[in-house]
Amino acid sequence: MSVGILGATGAVGQRFIQLLVDHPWFEIGELAASDRSAGKRYREACTWRLATPLPEAIADRVVQSCDAPFTSKVLFSGLDSSVAGEVETTLSGRGHAVVSNARNHRMDPDVPLLIPEVNPGHLDAIAVQRKRTGRGYIVTNPNCSVVGLAMALAPLERAFGLESVTVVTLQALSGAGYPGVASLDATDNIVPYIGGGEEEKIETEPRRILGSFRDGAFQLAPFAISASVHRVAVSDGHTMAMFVKLKRKASPEEAASALAGFRGEPQERNLPTAPRNPIHVLTEVDRPQPRLDRDRENGMAVSVGRIRGDNVYDLRLEALVHNTIRGAAGAAILNAELLQVRELLP
Amino acid sequence: MSVGILGATGAVGQRFIQLLVDHPWFEIGELAASDRSAGKRYREACTWRLATPLPEAIADRVVQSCDAPFTSKVLFSGLDSSVAGEVETTLSGRGHAVVSNARNHRMDPDVPLLIPEVNPGHLDAIAVQRKRTGRGYIVTNPNCSVVGLAMALAPLERAFGLESVTVVTLQALSGAGYPGVASLDATDNIVPYIGGGEEEKIETEPRRILGSFRDGAFQLAPFAISASVHRVAVSDGHTMAMFVKLKRKASPEEAASALAGFRGEPQERNLPTAPRNPIHVLTEVDRPQPRLDRDRENGMAVSVGRIRGDNVYDLRLEALVHNTIRGAAGAAILNAELLQVRELLP
Amino acid sequence: MSVGILGATGAVGQRFIQLLVDHPWFEIGELAASDRSAGKRYREACTWRLATPLPEAIADRVVQSCDAPFTSKVLFSGLDSSVAGEVETTLSGRGHAVVSNARNHRMDPDVPLLIPEVNPGHLDAIAVQRKRTGRGYIVTNPNCSVVGLAMALAPLERAFGLESVTVVTLQALSGAGYPGVASLDATDNIVPYIGGGEEEKIETEPRRILGSFRDGAFQLAPFAISASVHRVAVSDGHTMAMFVKLKRKASPEEAASALAGFRGEPQERNLPTAPRNPIHVLTEVDRPQPRLDRDRENGMAVSVGRIRGDNVYDLRLEALVHNTIRGAAGAAILNAELLQVRELLP
Amino acid sequence: MSVGILGATGAVGQRFIQLLVDHPWFEIGELAASDRSAGKRYREACTWRLATPLPEAIADRVVQSCDAPFTSKVLFSGLDSSVAGEVETTLSGRGHAVVSNARNHRMDPDVPLLIPEVNPGHLDAIAVQRKRTGRGYIVTNPNCSVVGLAMALAPLERAFGLESVTVVTLQALSGAGYPGVASLDATDNIVPYIGGGEEEKIETEPRRILGSFRDGAFQLAPFAISASVHRVAVSDGHTMAMFVKLKRKASPEEAASALAGFRGEPQERNLPTAPRNPIHVLTEVDRPQPRLDRDRENGMAVSVGRIRGDNVYDLRLEALVHNTIRGAAGAAILNAELLQVRELLP
Repeated sequence: MSVGILGATGAVGQRFIQLLVDHPWFEIGELAASDRSAGKRYREACTWRLATPLPEAIADRVVQSCDAPFTSKVLFSGLDSSVAGEVETTLSGRGHAVVSNARNHRMDPDVPLLIPEVNPGHLDAIAVQRKRTGRGYIVTNPNCSVVGLAMALAPLERAFGLESVTVVTLQALSGAGYPGVASLDATDNIVPYIGGGEEEKIETEPRRILGSFRDGAFQLAPFAISASVHRVAVSDGHTMAMFVKLKRKASPEEAASALAGFRGEPQERNLPTAPRNPIHVLTEVDRPQPRLDRDRENGMAVSVGRIRGDNVYDLRLEALVHNTIRGAAGAAILNAELLQVRELLP
Repeated sequence: MSVGILGATGAVGQRFIQLLVDHPWFEIGELAASDRSAGKRYREACTWRLATPLPEAIADRVVQSCDAPFTSKVLFSGLDSSVAGEVETTLSGRGHAVVSNARNHRMDPDVPLLIPEVNPGHLDAIAVQRKRTGRGYIVTNPNCSVVGLAMALAPLERAFGLESVTVVTLQALSGAGYPGVASLDATDNIVPYIGGGEEEKIETEPRRILGSFRDGAFQLAPFAISASVHRVAVSDGHTMAMFVKLKRKASPEEAASALAGFRGEPQERNLPTAPRNPIHVLTEVDRPQPRLDRDRENGMAVSVGRIRGDNVYDLRLEALVHNTIRGAAGAAILNAELLQVRELLP
Repeated sequence: MSVGILGATGAVGQRFIQLLVDHPWFEIGELAASDRSAGKRYREACTWRLATPLPEAIADRVVQSCDAPFTSKVLFSGLDSSVAGEVETTLSGRGHAVVSNARNHRMDPDVPLLIPEVNPGHLDAIAVQRKRTGRGYIVTNPNCSVVGLAMALAPLERAFGLESVTVVTLQALSGAGYPGVASLDATDNIVPYIGGGEEEKIETEPRRILGSFRDGAFQLAPFAISASVHRVAVSDGHTMAMFVKLKRKASPEEAASALAGFRGEPQERNLPTAPRNPIHVLTEVDRPQPRLDRDRENGMAVSVGRIRGDNVYDLRLEALVHNTIRGAAGAAILNAELLQVRELLP
Repeated sequence: MSVGILGATGAVGQRFIQLLVDHPWFEIGELAASDRSAGKRYREACTWRLATPLPEAIADRVVQSCDAPFTSKVLFSGLDSSVAGEVETTLSGRGHAVVSNARNHRMDPDVPLLIPEVNPGHLDAIAVQRKRTGRGYIVTNPNCSVVGLAMALAPLERAFGLESVTVVTLQALSGAGYPGVASLDATDNIVPYIGGGEEEKIETEPRRILGSFRDGAFQLAPFAISASVHRVAVSDGHTMAMFVKLKRKASPEEAASALAGFRGEPQERNLPTAPRNPIHVLTEVDRPQPRLDRDRENGMAVSVGRIRGDNVYDLRLEALVHNTIRGAAGAAILNAELLQVRELLP
């Protein structure tokens, strides 16, 4: 099945290409980007910044405009939020399944904000959405931090119920794209701020994801989240210090057991991009660490460690997610795989 | 007045020398270190790691053992905790005022754990201590993170009362001494753990500092603290994301006003090492940052920023402290200056 | 004496302000920048990125356009090379002494490319220049790497003569301005390239500086230079690995002696910004290092170490220069101080 | 075929395990380390620092002493040089083929210092060595920098002849093992020195490798090398700025062609660990870069770029080698594969 890539020259677009070039189900079709890139060969339009070489089969493809027609029915979107909203609406209106990493439509009332292991039932919103658009639709994945946070919270919510969550993030540079963060801001430094409403997204999206879709509408999960975000000198991998108050008390051992045993539909259906274990529970006292743990299961597993009690909350723990794989391009690809086995792709 | 330095060759000892070499009141007397260094010239015994050159007047001094006699009555201690406990007890027993950065005696029932701006009244414990030891005594400063945390909490405690505090630290490499953290652990990485009971110290020491000394004993302040610590690739400067629940609600503006207006005895008495403003309240959205703010007022001011409301707590804010100046050697020197003007030095 | 600053909001402009705010001879007059900044208060026009706070006395000054008239006779230029050429020509034509860090006029046939310790005689070119312009003139300082390289070469050239030089630079991030280098290019990485003709400048400018001004024209020094440049994850401080072939053989000890004894007119005249020793010869086997040595003599001294023999050349050595102080703003200020004592300022 | 690993818990030993765990020809047999580790399970004896998890099949193996007997005939050595000399002599004397990464025996008069693409003829020295030892022998691979340097020089030597070479290295932290370099030395810094005779090795080993083995003895290639080494804040990947004087002049294009076309016996025989192209010639102006290029061909290819003319030499270029794969464990494994197809393994 041919798939197009929107925003193909950007940081997320490059990850789409890297992860899709050997995909067993999907074949890379159109590469689309801004008008500035349209008409150029990919190797000229793009400053390839990944640690594996630009695939030769892609390098000489000609980039097209996002306005041009697509023969691929499925379109992955790594578009910047400044343009994603309108482009994705237009293309879903033309009958495409737009599987998007952009933030613009995540909170739309009939658009699934999907983590296949956590809330596959939210795909029911597609039927509602199609009443509006016809055949096409948009499915989104969460913010890069939220994927890790929501995956670490889901087993705790199911087993013990959540009352409130505080999370402090130490986010990688790649989350800001390229060129993104200035090196003088990253060297020997921490920036305690990320623009674009990062804290608001972290405080909102998990409640949608862990909520339900009932009677044609999303219901937010009823727990409060407080977030404080930081940019740190790490290339890939968002670290999160989490504090959790539960409805039913649980020991660190019970929490670890719930996390380690977590499985979902991607594992049951053995989707190609799914990790065998969505959550790796690490027992070493000083883990997870970005350089050592971000690539577990090809970057698709979330690592959790230091699960312990707390003086103010019930539990403290550390979580780590590869922000451009599980937190972006890999998330969207897993979404598309779920859509495929659910026979929802056009 | 001549002052000796215990642990003079280590990371904190080097800071003592750097900060004392031009001090208006104190003159560097004995340089003492482990038996391995004793008898060597300082320049040979020490791997000087500071960004200002080793003072020539110090370089050729001969290092003595901590067991040898001292003519200086005042001794600054930058000893490692593996030896500080016994050495400091011995030397205070011999009549010295030991002004220590080591953790060993911080929680002793008659030893002040002092931040001159915050709890100068704790110096009353010296009289109790002297009943035990004779003329000498020990005064300690807090853990490097705790200095910044307790200074940022003190104005809030006084103005609004504290119910509970959660703090996530991003701690600098110099906090682990030299060689300390391996570069492979620091490069493109975060380590979500610091040994030596770091989290316990952060959860305990502020309650002693913000508590009272009454009827010959310390009373802990009655609020809970939860801490989660991280080592990050920053040379100097501990960053802290703080969440605070107050007894009496306060707006971010009221909190900022309380913090910015904070002054103490060091400012009133114009002590040489005292910052004019102990707390700098920064209003830029992305501050404080270690590289840009750690050296404010020669590293003696704590910077606070991003004061804002919270979904779970009442306030969120970021604090930054220079961990080897305000958080270690500078803290001890300010302690000694307070002892001097209080006429408590032998 | 009032001095204006061109390009006052940029990285070099900020250093000018930092270094001039307490200068004994010069007082900061006009702050000029691009039309985008003109009319704004300095604190709004500028993203201050230095580790000392923006001086309060400057923060509320209004920035003017470079086209507006200046009452200050002396103008420091930290302009970007995209605009510096024309602006500096215009302003020198209006009678100003333009003391510039920009590269545009460095190789002009009557413009001194000045290092006060090395080639003060090149100031004779000002008389030639004034025949063309009237009263005003331009004086330039070299490229940030070249200052360190030429200062380390000058004593060797004088004592032993130079035949050829190979230099490999490891250049700091601040050399590219702000935002400059992307953090993803700097983290866990080296970039073996710097644009803007960096290698050509390093291969050309030292030959002008170490050459002579005779009969109204500059003569290049007759030795070849080969350069290979790298951008590394260091905030400030350019490191250079140098290999030197001499006309008269010299031992490492003789070379060290020539370097350590180097003095010039700024030292003789005791100029306020002059280092006491222009070159610090370090004998530790692993020095100079940027973090430890860049700030020697307030960033105005060049550090040299590892002076040793060579299998291919005669000498190998390492040099370090603070690229935004001695290599940029501090260099220009020292130039102006020399102009002042030579009574060349208008 | 079973293979043992000496020094299995160290940095190089861990790479041996990572690279051998799925090897098509070799199976990991004994894990040997110092007496401190002997008797422990591998997971307890080792602080695993690689970015892929410790293989489960290895984690519970018991580590043995290097003095204990080995059933594996082939032993890979990642021993520290403080012990490698004696241990390897003893074990080759007992009939083992010791394929070593240690420096101790590299320059022995009958021990091959092998890069399979460059000097497979040096294996003739094994017959000489066996006259001394009986059945066993030692084969070594070069210093981590030298592998990259000698591979980049070999095609130039063959095509044009070498007169002299100057090389400046920017070496990764992993080259110093773990804990190795202190993070305070690596952060915002460069160290222009590496102990253990690093420069001498770089100046000597390539001449052995590019020399010949004739009449029972090694002849050094007759060109001079000058090296200047630096430790930089890069996790893996040594960068080298090279300057080359040739016997017969060559244009950058001719040099690029010679480098890109380089092949050797590993490619002809299609050895499992051999890269398809030993040297990748990159044409982008700012490559090679460690983070982007070190993993080419699983870390076994050397990347070369910026091939250009020179004012002092004939050619300048940049080379990059993955120091712990092609420069250490991967080099030894490729050596063993060549020994296997040459039927030299016991």
